Amino acid sequence: VPRHRVVVDTVDVADFAAEVGGFPVILKTTRGGYDGRGVWLVEDVAAAAEPFLAGVPVLAEERVGFRRELAAVVARGPHGQGVAYPVVETVQRDGMCVEVVAPAPGLDEATALAAQGLALRVADELGVVGVLAVELFETERGLLVNELAMRPHNTGHWSIDGAVTSQFENHLRAVLDLPLGAPTMLAPAAVMVNVLGGDTPDLHEGLRHVMARDPALRVHLYGKAVRPGRKVGHVTALGEDVAELRARAHHAADYLRGVIER
Amino acid sequence: VPRHRVVVDTVDVADFAAEVGGFPVILKTTRGGYDGRGVWLVEDVAAAAEPFLAGVPVLAEERVGFRRELAAVVARGPHGQGVAYPVVETVQRDGMCVEVVAPAPGLDEATALAAQGLALRVADELGVVGVLAVELFETERGLLVNELAMRPHNTGHWSIDGAVTSQFENHLRAVLDLPLGAPTMLAPAAVMVNVLGGDTPDLHEGLRHVMARDPALRVHLYGKAVRPGRKVGHVTALGEDVAELRARAHHAADYLRGVIER
Repeated sequence: VPRHRVVVDTVDVADFAAEVGGFPVILKTTRGGYDGRGVWLVEDVAAAAEPFLAGVPVLAEERVGFRRELAAVVARGPHGQGVAYPVVETVQRDGMCVEVVAPAPGLDEATALAAQGLALRVADELGVVGVLAVELFETERGLLVNELAMRPHNTGHWSIDGAVTSQFENHLRAVLDLPLGAPTMLAPAAVMVNVLGGDTPDLHEGLRHVMARDPALRVHLYGKAVRPGRKVGHVTALGEDVAELRARAHHAADYLRGVIER
Repeated sequence: VPRHRVVVDTVDVADFAAEVGGFPVILKTTRGGYDGRGVWLVEDVAAAAEPFLAGVPVLAEERVGFRRELAAVVARGPHGQGVAYPVVETVQRDGMCVEVVAPAPGLDEATALAAQGLALRVADELGVVGVLAVELFETERGLLVNELAMRPHNTGHWSIDGAVTSQFENHLRAVLDLPLGAPTMLAPAAVMVNVLGGDTPDLHEGLRHVMARDPALRVHLYGKAVRPGRKVGHVTALGEDVAELRARAHHAADYLRGVIER
């Protein structure tokens, strides 16, 4: 993991920054964080005050230079059976996951196996029952754990359409103490793109268009009220050529959001 | 279609039999038939009385010698958009579908296209909105329509796990006037085997076993009360080798039913 410790005030943040080679550092509130909320990239001591306003303990982390972000999603049953989904590459924008590519392009097998093994070990040592997503930084000095999510996770949504057994089914199997299902992919590659709320409150006109344009695209709308930036659905494209899958999935997500008109 | 006409009594059945080359003939009640109920293979005039007891019109059909049974499942939207699933081979036992193989092994492409075209034409001419399954006999003289089912159908259940868009989703898309989804298969072959009620009222112990034995098998139990011979679920295996997929699917179905013990 990146170097880190709990900090109590802005002076303590400055001390921590000095320990890890200076600002910027990352501050995180230890409650209520998601989709970039509760996480600050802090450039100086003056900017370090805001996280403390939440009234919960604050964690400081060194800022890690990374090549890209990966995620290893695993499921674990109550007696220790585990399955590992292919390691994925995740793309974040404004602290929020916008795109997931399975499997992570160009990831060598040794690193992929190391990530899966790490995730299974974390699940085992913490006694997780159900799905655990381990978000990772791929860095010059190897893999670093960024965050753990003990639940079916955005980085595993592609598995609904792209795996023999989805992360949701394996979560339920684990909780019900049933044997876990194969996490095998149903296509060489899958790209999932989140549909974020935009200016169009009604997603259904867009739905008609994207379904007609790309009959093989898998579209999931969550029935949530549309608010700017809120995750209101996702789309998944399955196939071989990641560039083509990314183009198809982003087109649909952008169209549904109302960013593009055709 | 096979030669057929409505018959009014047993004497009429004997006349029909004479017209088509003699007994046996098929009698069907025109209401309430499913899973072999409402269908009789009648060997002589004495056996022709029973179908008339139901008090509904009775249809007589010539008995057709066929190599095997096929099914073409299509979906049609209200404006005439259609999609055709791969033509499947169906295996019946006691008048009930027990196994479906997608695509039908060894079916030449011209016959497959003819079957899909026929099913789309039937859907169009009858104004079907939703899924239509056309059950076919493959005979020496070509394809004959056996039965039409205007709904998601047992011969399309494999599509839940084995197609980009399942027959159920396409049925809903059609009814909702949304563009139809791709019926493309997610694997070279799929085998679906029905789970019939047997002597074991509780399917859950068997479920644990089949899930542990074959993590890639897709198991669907319907939550219906178990009665002998009743369809209470189905299993689907995806892969390449049809013989292997059949063995896996039948093992699981037999185990769930309680016919085999390991």
